[in-house]
Amino acid sequence: GEAPEAEEEPEDPWQDEEYFGNYGTLKLHLEMLSDKSRTEAYRQVILGNRAFLKNKVVMDLGCGTGIISLFCAQLAQPSTVYAVEASSMANYTRQLVKQNGFEDTITVLQGRIEEIQLPQQVDVLVSEWMGNCLLFEFMVESVVLSRDRWLRDGGVMWPSSAALSLVPCQADTYYSENMSFWDRPYGLDFTPLQLLAQQEFFTKPKFSHIIEPKDCLAPPCDVLFLDMYTLQVRDLEELKGHFHFCVEKSGTFHGFTAWFTVYFESLEAGDTTVELNTGPNAEPTHWKQTLFMLDTPVSVCAGDSISGDITVHRNHTWRRHMTVTFEWTIKTSTEDSYSCQVGKKSFPMWR
Amino acid sequence: GEAPEAEEEPEDPWQDEEYFGNYGTLKLHLEMLSDKSRTEAYRQVILGNRAFLKNKVVMDLGCGTGIISLFCAQLAQPSTVYAVEASSMANYTRQLVKQNGFEDTITVLQGRIEEIQLPQQVDVLVSEWMGNCLLFEFMVESVVLSRDRWLRDGGVMWPSSAALSLVPCQADTYYSENMSFWDRPYGLDFTPLQLLAQQEFFTKPKFSHIIEPKDCLAPPCDVLFLDMYTLQVRDLEELKGHFHFCVEKSGTFHGFTAWFTVYFESLEAGDTTVELNTGPNAEPTHWKQTLFMLDTPVSVCAGDSISGDITVHRNHTWRRHMTVTFEWTIKTSTEDSYSCQVGKKSFPMWR
Ligand SMILES: [Ca+2]
Ligand SMILES: [Ca+2]
Repeated sequence: GEAPEAEEEPEDPWQDEEYFGNYGTLKLHLEMLSDKSRTEAYRQVILGNRAFLKNKVVMDLGCGTGIISLFCAQLAQPSTVYAVEASSMANYTRQLVKQNGFEDTITVLQGRIEEIQLPQQVDVLVSEWMGNCLLFEFMVESVVLSRDRWLRDGGVMWPSSAALSLVPCQADTYYSENMSFWDRPYGLDFTPLQLLAQQEFFTKPKFSHIIEPKDCLAPPCDVLFLDMYTLQVRDLEELKGHFHFCVEKSGTFHGFTAWFTVYFESLEAGDTTVELNTGPNAEPTHWKQTLFMLDTPVSVCAGDSISGDITVHRNHTWRRHMTVTFEWTIKTSTEDSYSCQVGKKSFPMWR
Repeated sequence: GEAPEAEEEPEDPWQDEEYFGNYGTLKLHLEMLSDKSRTEAYRQVILGNRAFLKNKVVMDLGCGTGIISLFCAQLAQPSTVYAVEASSMANYTRQLVKQNGFEDTITVLQGRIEEIQLPQQVDVLVSEWMGNCLLFEFMVESVVLSRDRWLRDGGVMWPSSAALSLVPCQADTYYSENMSFWDRPYGLDFTPLQLLAQQEFFTKPKFSHIIEPKDCLAPPCDVLFLDMYTLQVRDLEELKGHFHFCVEKSGTFHGFTAWFTVYFESLEAGDTTVELNTGPNAEPTHWKQTLFMLDTPVSVCAGDSISGDITVHRNHTWRRHMTVTFEWTIKTSTEDSYSCQVGKKSFPMWR
């Protein structure tokens, strides 16, 4: 076991004032609603399951403006939708429900899921809980707690499962703009700033990276998989995965890029699972991808292998934060030579 | 006179910890150094005045990584350059000076200009003090104080003068992404969020706007002009300007866009003034432009006039902040009709 990192005892390890404060402003909600891949995925799930949803009781956890609840009432005929939102956005959600004439179907409840009371169990628990690198901000814990408390036996979880994917990648532009830049700008030697640059730009992952398919050095691997029916809160403390990549083309291995896919099972005969894929081969989403830069790039050749382990370690103190650790081995073998290089790097997200 | 706005007595009305804290990280410096228009303008000034600079004493105020001081030593032969920086970046500036072999010419001094002591007066005061909308963060006050204290009679100021420009503009994309979006997204009525959107997105100006020349509804006006030789600190409390635009093409008047130009006089015969223009017809800079959105767009036609006043009112409490107020009249006249519409809006930047 590992010792807790708590040097500093936080007043609120969930930082809820900051977290829910952000979701009380419109900016984030606009960004999420404007994200067509995200919003349309949920819309497709509701639409494709409208026969199944008839007379069902639904909970929409962390409903924000209530878009998923509104889709339920607009496209299907659930008996009741409980739209649960902890931030002050809930007041506007209520107005939107009324404006669209759905106040008989949708009940907006403002509060944290641990505090709110429902009059009955639910048939379906739907939520858009995914963060950067799938887990960041750990809203998933609230989903698991809601499931255990409010989902009836045999009830449905949407998303039903989730996977984290990883690929070794090039990041030439990001590297040169942040690191090579200091080599000789304007004919001057700025290399004394390179260590500072590495610390400032490469210690934490880069959120909001968009990786182009051509910068993937190998086909991606799924490294973590969550079954939303069986996931336990304690599982979230440490998640481990393994990767093995076969380098497809020669290039510079600058780091790893991660993203997630979530899957929504269909309850209707003939209808297929809806998938929300936030990777480089899908339409870009507001999550984009997450880039983890090595301190020093490594040249790799087609045929090399990059294998190792990823560990997502939830912060003991700041419960919405985590550290992602990569341990890797790069193997090169030709007819008459063999070489092997190992590395390890941990990235706090965010502390 | 107006009453001070101080309800809350700030511990530090200059917020120096936050302000200089930001400049202690590399991100901002990288952004400024990577801004070719900005950095090359200062380089051209030094290069074009290298004969003049021979044996001169120079002060580079708020030197950051020291790029301007390094240009002086690299391209000219000043006797001494005092590179003054309040943030902790000064430690790195010293390393860069040494790495480039200029420690005999450049002396790095860490401290606020009000506190540091120079052994002599200077012939040239050069600084990159401009913020959003020219004045934001009011570093210009430190430049004026330095001039009065350390510039010898007849010494040179770079920039020598500065102008704030304004244009009435369209901002279709920004307006539709933030306001029209709520009309009927996904077949639902989200109009109850429009007032919130207006408050959240249009109350403060949008920094980092890039206006395309085609979205300018009229030729721009210079509304404020600062002579860096005669500017007084007290002048900064309230600056007023007037504008009169002749609408060139029909369109939607969404707001005003502002930017600045600074001018560096040449001290050498035959050499021309260097200009750093951050407007829509110049290369984009890291300042981009500043967009001030009206609450409600107004349709205008070619031939209409938009005239009025702009006031930049420095915050009495938070000394790096200001409020920009626009008062405007739109006049339309055709053969047999005349109409006139007036408006006023104040934008806090940032409080
Ligand atoms: Ca989310
Ligand atoms: Ca500046």
